[in-house]
Amino acid sequence: MDLKTYLKEKKIVVDEALNAYFPDDEGPASDLIKAMKYSLFAGGKRLRPILCMAGAEAVGGDGKDVLAFACALELIHTYSLIHDDLPEMDNDDLRRGKPTNHKVFGEALALLAGDGLLTEAFSMMTDPELTKHIEPDIMVKVIGLISGAAGYRGMVGGQVADIQSEGREVDFSVVEYIHTHKTGALIIASVTSGAMLARGNESQINAILSYGKNIGLAFQISDDILDIESDSETLGKNVGMDEKMGKITYPRAVGLMKAKKIQSELVEDAIESLGIFDHKAKPLRMIARYIIERKK
Amino acid sequence: MDLKTYLKEKKIVVDEALNAYFPDDEGPASDLIKAMKYSLFAGGKRLRPILCMAGAEAVGGDGKDVLAFACALELIHTYSLIHDDLPEMDNDDLRRGKPTNHKVFGEALALLAGDGLLTEAFSMMTDPELTKHIEPDIMVKVIGLISGAAGYRGMVGGQVADIQSEGREVDFSVVEYIHTHKTGALIIASVTSGAMLARGNESQINAILSYGKNIGLAFQISDDILDIESDSETLGKNVGMDEKMGKITYPRAVGLMKAKKIQSELVEDAIESLGIFDHKAKPLRMIARYIIERKK
Repeated sequence: MDLKTYLKEKKIVVDEALNAYFPDDEGPASDLIKAMKYSLFAGGKRLRPILCMAGAEAVGGDGKDVLAFACALELIHTYSLIHDDLPEMDNDDLRRGKPTNHKVFGEALALLAGDGLLTEAFSMMTDPELTKHIEPDIMVKVIGLISGAAGYRGMVGGQVADIQSEGREVDFSVVEYIHTHKTGALIIASVTSGAMLARGNESQINAILSYGKNIGLAFQISDDILDIESDSETLGKNVGMDEKMGKITYPRAVGLMKAKKIQSELVEDAIESLGIFDHKAKPLRMIARYIIERKK
Repeated sequence: MDLKTYLKEKKIVVDEALNAYFPDDEGPASDLIKAMKYSLFAGGKRLRPILCMAGAEAVGGDGKDVLAFACALELIHTYSLIHDDLPEMDNDDLRRGKPTNHKVFGEALALLAGDGLLTEAFSMMTDPELTKHIEPDIMVKVIGLISGAAGYRGMVGGQVADIQSEGREVDFSVVEYIHTHKTGALIIASVTSGAMLARGNESQINAILSYGKNIGLAFQISDDILDIESDSETLGKNVGMDEKMGKITYPRAVGLMKAKKIQSELVEDAIESLGIFDHKAKPLRMIARYIIERKK
């Protein structure tokens, strides 16, 4: 099996589950649901859900059994993009080649669509039908893991540090904080939650955690490199934004060559972390390499 | 025991738990934590946490055992106020007698403080130490209940209907939708979650649910009446805002007299719902009366 087929198959599973979960609605909140679905189906790669399922598979579980959490991670990721794009934040008008949520639905509805997606993530993680193969004690632990990674101790904290460092001279330690929190935390939680939900043992979960830390950082660095090297059409969003916003990134802090070197080392470390696993971790190994080869 | 003492004692318990939960922090997210705590400790009545604890007590439980969820409900309520006050929403500059979050910390940080509080609510609901007396299966159910009530099928949905109806002629059914969703849903979830977490039986939970529906609607009507009859100093926020924003409310839709009559009936119905309970439901009975007697 090649990675392209794996990613495609998994994306279909995720898209179908998300589609089935969100009803069409003609009630007073119908515009809200439209706004939520607009960003949810705007062409995301479903990387976090796929990492969650691949994490479950690596420890011998079935990816479909953890779909509730896999999809919930995409809801959280999508909410964060909608809020990040708002005028008071990055003020972006293009995302995945389409107008951003607030450009289509207005700022109030975009704000609430983000709130709705974030909240619904926790409804999805507790959906009785979707979680029937998972024990409640593990569900509670994983909800704690994911909310911790998404909140002020994780992604939201990284976002704050990011906007506060714009246009300012900051320590490299702040750059590292931003990277590990803003993007890294939720990626780590995605793959680790899959392994936990599928009842991986302690050494397996620690190995997956180490894998997640490495690819999480590699992913953010590749995002920053793409912002420099790619073009808007390929990337589906405006490029050169980091420099424009005065954002300090890995390639800007250490140089493009060094950033690429660090990135390659992180991917190799990630793959090495998976040494205890058999062929069932092959998707995770392939995903690690894909992160630095991707074009968008 | 009188209500004033009960509310005061419970508020202290909630405030202490919230205080212990949020650390002082000097790291890159320190401003975020400051912004979160600013609104969290801006003088809220802690009505939702108190309802949660009183719901637990009514079915024979200990309010302190459900503190994780009680406090989480306050986090959710506080996030909703921060986002509601943002310029793209109600654009309010005064809340509980103090400048609103974005007036103090700026719009970006206020947005993220709201996101942080909402997310952290789910961390708090799964905190191992705070939830050690609750079974995981019930925790999962209640997380589902609360997220459903807070999200697009509840509070966020009501908020959307509310902003979309501003300055427009809307059906009374939309007014009812707004009231039952925007405020009612989380109040119902607060008191019901307490009863569920304390292992109330089905008929007890249904009775509490009926109580919650009645006081939830009564509470929103009293909010709307206070916006007409109170003054900014007493209320701690600008009054007359509903009329200014062209918002359709119960008193505006049916008249002030009729609204007060409906409100009294709802409170009597709420108390009647508690018929199966003994003295342990006395706080809930007192809270129902307090809702229409409150001045802020």
